[in-house]
Amino acid sequence: MTLIDLPASPPGVPLAASWDGTIFSLLDQRRLPHEVVHEVQDSGESVFAAIREMRVRGAPAIGIAAAFGLALAMKDDDGLQGAAWHARLAERAAWLETARPTAVNLAWALRRCCAAATAAAPATGAAGRAALLREAEAILAEDLAICRGIAAAGLDLVPDGARVLTHCNAGSLAVSAWGTATAPIYAAAAAGRRVKVFADETRPVLQGARLTAFELQTAGVDVTLISDNMAAHMMATGEVDLVIVGTDRVTANGDVVNKIGTLGVAVLARHFDIPFWVACPSSTFDADTATGADVPIEERSADEVTDIAGQRVAPDGVKVRNPAFDVTPAALVTGIITERGRITAPLGDGLAQLLG
Amino acid sequence: MTLIDLPASPPGVPLAASWDGTIFSLLDQRRLPHEVVHEVQDSGESVFAAIREMRVRGAPAIGIAAAFGLALAMKDDDGLQGAAWHARLAERAAWLETARPTAVNLAWALRRCCAAATAAAPATGAAGRAALLREAEAILAEDLAICRGIAAAGLDLVPDGARVLTHCNAGSLAVSAWGTATAPIYAAAAAGRRVKVFADETRPVLQGARLTAFELQTAGVDVTLISDNMAAHMMATGEVDLVIVGTDRVTANGDVVNKIGTLGVAVLARHFDIPFWVACPSSTFDADTATGADVPIEERSADEVTDIAGQRVAPDGVKVRNPAFDVTPAALVTGIITERGRITAPLGDGLAQLLG
Repeated sequence: MTLIDLPASPPGVPLAASWDGTIFSLLDQRRLPHEVVHEVQDSGESVFAAIREMRVRGAPAIGIAAAFGLALAMKDDDGLQGAAWHARLAERAAWLETARPTAVNLAWALRRCCAAATAAAPATGAAGRAALLREAEAILAEDLAICRGIAAAGLDLVPDGARVLTHCNAGSLAVSAWGTATAPIYAAAAAGRRVKVFADETRPVLQGARLTAFELQTAGVDVTLISDNMAAHMMATGEVDLVIVGTDRVTANGDVVNKIGTLGVAVLARHFDIPFWVACPSSTFDADTATGADVPIEERSADEVTDIAGQRVAPDGVKVRNPAFDVTPAALVTGIITERGRITAPLGDGLAQLLG
Repeated sequence: MTLIDLPASPPGVPLAASWDGTIFSLLDQRRLPHEVVHEVQDSGESVFAAIREMRVRGAPAIGIAAAFGLALAMKDDDGLQGAAWHARLAERAAWLETARPTAVNLAWALRRCCAAATAAAPATGAAGRAALLREAEAILAEDLAICRGIAAAGLDLVPDGARVLTHCNAGSLAVSAWGTATAPIYAAAAAGRRVKVFADETRPVLQGARLTAFELQTAGVDVTLISDNMAAHMMATGEVDLVIVGTDRVTANGDVVNKIGTLGVAVLARHFDIPFWVACPSSTFDADTATGADVPIEERSADEVTDIAGQRVAPDGVKVRNPAFDVTPAALVTGIITERGRITAPLGDGLAQLLG
């Protein structure tokens, strides 16, 4: 199966963001896995709230939401034109960016849409809004194409009968239809192969239990949920053939920054001689950062560890550490799957070549 | 500091079972870490309920509870004597054993108390009950002495400033005052050394968050709670000097059967060149079982993984694996700390020598 044979979306997969040419809607991920509610977005305010309240999460999905959100935020300004319209656009973009100031893709998507509107030099506000919408469609289409490219590039890593372990959520709910880490899995399933997935629950925020298990199950993929600390047992008993995870950033030397717990999975995979693959868009490569040691690791609030689903599970006043990410050294990574193809060790050389 | 210098209990440590010569009480561990309730046990029925409802847990603690429970269960039978008293004793012991049929220490303690009562050939029911109580006191004293012995044997592994990572709960709440994995930690703290402990939360049942963090905090030991999947990051960033865990069983070749997640910690420790120690009574050695592969791994119910503190966190109908234990191969174990001293690799030889 080549790229050309892959469907636009894996059958049955739930979409974080949907656009049918008229209506833009977002899946409320806070209500997963218990309720599946696609909320129609009819204003900039509704998208702002969805981003701020993390009903949409995952960097690419936030970028897509922001792009459509900006077009929606200008829907009452068709009567403006020229400098007045552009001033209004700048103001609305600056406002939308405050929905989640730390989300890099949010600012990136808004900048890109504003630049497209400027380049279009629209004669009317309505034409400007059409230009914004075209750019949002382009961002969504590119994201879909990138994930589809990762699916094609990783498909042969997942043969019939393969048993894959993944960590956190780098699936349709974080990105677009194919996801990144899930893309080769969905592609193998779409090709009729039997695939079995172990989803680490991914404490403290439980993205694996709440999101990955949900989206794979919804798409009809055979998924088994485990606590993070069961991965070693599954590997030791010969039940895992390969690992595929996503990543937030790959540094120039090939170190992989991803959700806390990824490093542990990588060490286990090496110990048990199991391939450890990372799937990501080539835009995830950060050539300006030499190694993972140069990336500051965000520590999040203690209550993510001490409280689960609103219930306190730890003693009051106990000290907590809560690093949100860890760094997997390039030496533990079998290879990286991108929309431009795969690179394998030594990653540094492959990255330089890939980024050309 | 030698064994003789160690206090009977580490200062401030909460006790699972307490006996003051008149009153036997059990700490209700289901209410931890939120409420500290020591329940006075005034009948066989109350101890039966505490065991059945897992208000007391941890193999040695269950054995101690059962021993005192049997004496309490006979408190209304002082009027019986001879064969009638012994028949009643056998009946009450058989009943008490049904409180938790899979607990090996429960049956062991009851058998031992019955044998002691038989050997005492008591002239009256009251004398028989006194013999039962003496045996219960002996079981408690032996457990205290064993844990104190482990404390002395492991003390020099925890120098001033040591940073120890532990998994699950092998502390005062599972055993008696010193615990097993915690014994060298409490001993070092009692000796005035600065000790810092990372407690893995230990999904799915969260013994680390609920129990280990609680008992160390209560005893004034510097403890930091982490999710299981953060251990790799703490090791990679140089924040862990050694690991100490307990164990349910050590097989003849030195394989260690312990709470799920122990294997992963051992693999990480090896990768990051950190000593991985196991602490246990020498009675934990199972010379009749050749290797860990011969030990069946119990799979517990799915809802331990899908539900946390009564809240569902995973999609309905999702497949789950929930092995309660895993096997750490002897090759990953730096050494074993027992009340008879320490053994180091190759463990098989050391075990044979230790068990004589």
